[in-house]
Amino acid sequence: MPAAPLVVQKFGGSSLADADRIRRVARRIARERASGSELVVVVSAMGDTTDELLGLAAAITDTPDERELDMLLATGEHQSATLVSMALHALGVAAISLSGPQAGITTDGRYGKARIASIQPDRVRRELDGGKVVIVAGFQGRAEGDDAAGADITTLGRGGSDTTAVALAARLRATRCQIFTDVRGIYTADPRIVADARQLPVIGYEEMLELAGQGAQVMQTRAVELGWVNDVVIEVLSSFEDAPGTLIKEDPLVEQRNKVRGLAHDRNVAKVTLVEVPDRPGVAAHVFGPLAEAGINVDMIVQNIGHGGATDLSFTIPRVELAKAKRILEPIARELGFRELTTDSSVAKVSIVGAGIQNAPGYAARMFGTLADAGVNIEMISTSEIRITTIIAEDALETAVRALHAAFELERPETAVAQPSAAAG
Amino acid sequence: MPAAPLVVQKFGGSSLADADRIRRVARRIARERASGSELVVVVSAMGDTTDELLGLAAAITDTPDERELDMLLATGEHQSATLVSMALHALGVAAISLSGPQAGITTDGRYGKARIASIQPDRVRRELDGGKVVIVAGFQGRAEGDDAAGADITTLGRGGSDTTAVALAARLRATRCQIFTDVRGIYTADPRIVADARQLPVIGYEEMLELAGQGAQVMQTRAVELGWVNDVVIEVLSSFEDAPGTLIKEDPLVEQRNKVRGLAHDRNVAKVTLVEVPDRPGVAAHVFGPLAEAGINVDMIVQNIGHGGATDLSFTIPRVELAKAKRILEPIARELGFRELTTDSSVAKVSIVGAGIQNAPGYAARMFGTLADAGVNIEMISTSEIRITTIIAEDALETAVRALHAAFELERPETAVAQPSAAAG
Repeated sequence: MPAAPLVVQKFGGSSLADADRIRRVARRIARERASGSELVVVVSAMGDTTDELLGLAAAITDTPDERELDMLLATGEHQSATLVSMALHALGVAAISLSGPQAGITTDGRYGKARIASIQPDRVRRELDGGKVVIVAGFQGRAEGDDAAGADITTLGRGGSDTTAVALAARLRATRCQIFTDVRGIYTADPRIVADARQLPVIGYEEMLELAGQGAQVMQTRAVELGWVNDVVIEVLSSFEDAPGTLIKEDPLVEQRNKVRGLAHDRNVAKVTLVEVPDRPGVAAHVFGPLAEAGINVDMIVQNIGHGGATDLSFTIPRVELAKAKRILEPIARELGFRELTTDSSVAKVSIVGAGIQNAPGYAARMFGTLADAGVNIEMISTSEIRITTIIAEDALETAVRALHAAFELERPETAVAQPSAAAG
Repeated sequence: MPAAPLVVQKFGGSSLADADRIRRVARRIARERASGSELVVVVSAMGDTTDELLGLAAAITDTPDERELDMLLATGEHQSATLVSMALHALGVAAISLSGPQAGITTDGRYGKARIASIQPDRVRRELDGGKVVIVAGFQGRAEGDDAAGADITTLGRGGSDTTAVALAARLRATRCQIFTDVRGIYTADPRIVADARQLPVIGYEEMLELAGQGAQVMQTRAVELGWVNDVVIEVLSSFEDAPGTLIKEDPLVEQRNKVRGLAHDRNVAKVTLVEVPDRPGVAAHVFGPLAEAGINVDMIVQNIGHGGATDLSFTIPRVELAKAKRILEPIARELGFRELTTDSSVAKVSIVGAGIQNAPGYAARMFGTLADAGVNIEMISTSEIRITTIIAEDALETAVRALHAAFELERPETAVAQPSAAAG
């Protein structure tokens, strides 16, 4: 008899917001179990639990200790894991909840943003062999160290439960990793902005990565990367309806496709400009080193050609990190001797994403032309192999997204999409 | 230089009900720390967290799995421990929170009612030596077993944080174990019933045990027992005001004192009567064995003298266990062939407590006489070395407590209390 297929399912906080939803999730798990699959289920904290716990910590102190905060936040996933397990018992399905450490997940020990270092799946495997559905608390693992019982808990950062799910799927050689969310899948653009945005049946890892990284926010970027490296077939689907989702997997036709697959946008952007930075070696390291140490993710960087020994250096960071970045940069400003530090938190990012588009110059031109026709000014530009991103004023974002969706005919089924003509480039 | 004195402090849920109270508790801890003591602080879950978690579980299923429930409930203490630690950091006091397992607390593994099997205090000792206040999540420990990282968490039952505190005080040879509560100490009777009830400055372990066990509910019985066996000086005091509490310790004068120290009462009582039980060996075991296995604590047992080969067997159990007890006893009723099972959940228990009172027959007589004069009917009686307990109708409870408090002159300072005359016996 061949081994039963192993499926990893992950349910996010909005799918587990109250007892009714938890029971609905349990029924969904029970159906999958009845089909004969072995099941590992990864859960996030219920509803807004994580934000509530952060609020509690903030009411105590402005600067909560990172170790204590991780131990506090991890309780949210412990709670939902036990409740899903109880709901399965109530349906007559054998189940057991495991914390991240119990599931054998070890991290590099960095509080608040730990990376999974290894997974020892013995306990999970044993419970599966015993016929149980294994519910794993997402978002967490124990810090590496020799004292297993006393080791500290670390969290994987926002959305870390996706990473837990994909990592377990890779380690256990699952046939599928299903990410249940409050959307039906990946769309050509945000359906709240573009009325005829279309759900994609399949998307490649790299394209998904650009969409997620640029603000599609359906799945954590790290989880997609991990799936890519380990060749885990991921399905993003709705926990509220029974409908096919979007498969994320290696697409053998990706090289030939060569077209725009979707748009991404992100409002969590602030632009920082250092005005008249002395144009000498080492300046960039002095600016970006301390930001990196503080865990601030610098995204786009643009440096103008120097004039008169000085240059303007602009970059974008997550808007929520702006205050912290200013605290770090102001003393450095004096050290480096630049004239001024200006910031703009009313900008947004919009990108077109599609494998191969950078090699087809028509796409950039069509994107910039469309934005110009729509009266949208481009403040910064960056590109990757499969993406072209612009920074624009936030109040122009919806106009820009709708114009681009129409220009690239993303509402049409994929087979019917025309290649942009070279003449447009 | 002599070692700094080590103090264990325990704060209950009402002392930690919100961010303000947590900060107040932190200030109290900081003051004690500033006096030079090494400090281990044991915390319960915030406010009604435990009840809220139980409610969440109950909304999912009527019969939550015990293992899952323990993992769920333990999160409450994890949360409060991290928050107290953060609040201390905010005051500039070095602190670290530890879960029960991290604090080296191992239990016998019985979910929901685990007993502490051992404490390996290495981690706690190391953190103390590093100058930190150690905040330990009460009410929990890890189940014994060889897989330390994967071991299950077990809870010690209601009020188990008291036990955690006393056990740590014993293991670490603390000079004091302070139990902070929402009352100022131990009283001669419940001050909500008796207006002139008096706070006791000192009470012996055994007397405290009877008071707590009979419903004084200030401290968990097991914690007092543990303190007694290990000679831990316990102080019960208020977390809301700076006032001396009640010391619980071995009292060298206890043998000579020979008088009523206080009254206890308990409304969480139900009476069960098995009518016309066949009077043959083994019947009691058949009745009480299954109740014990189900974890139902049978308190008083009264069996009448048999007549015609049958006898009535009455006993009391916690009222909250009545439904469960009936489910267990009904099939046994048919097996044993008794005529009827009657229950009464409108009874209450009232006791007089004082070392040596059983050897002075005047006390029982005065107690029964006082109740008779107050028009209170006694349904059952039981006695121990230092306690006389009666079961009465619940609606007569307050009348009974006030009459007994007056009869034994408990409002008077202790030195002035007269011995009951032998003529009263």
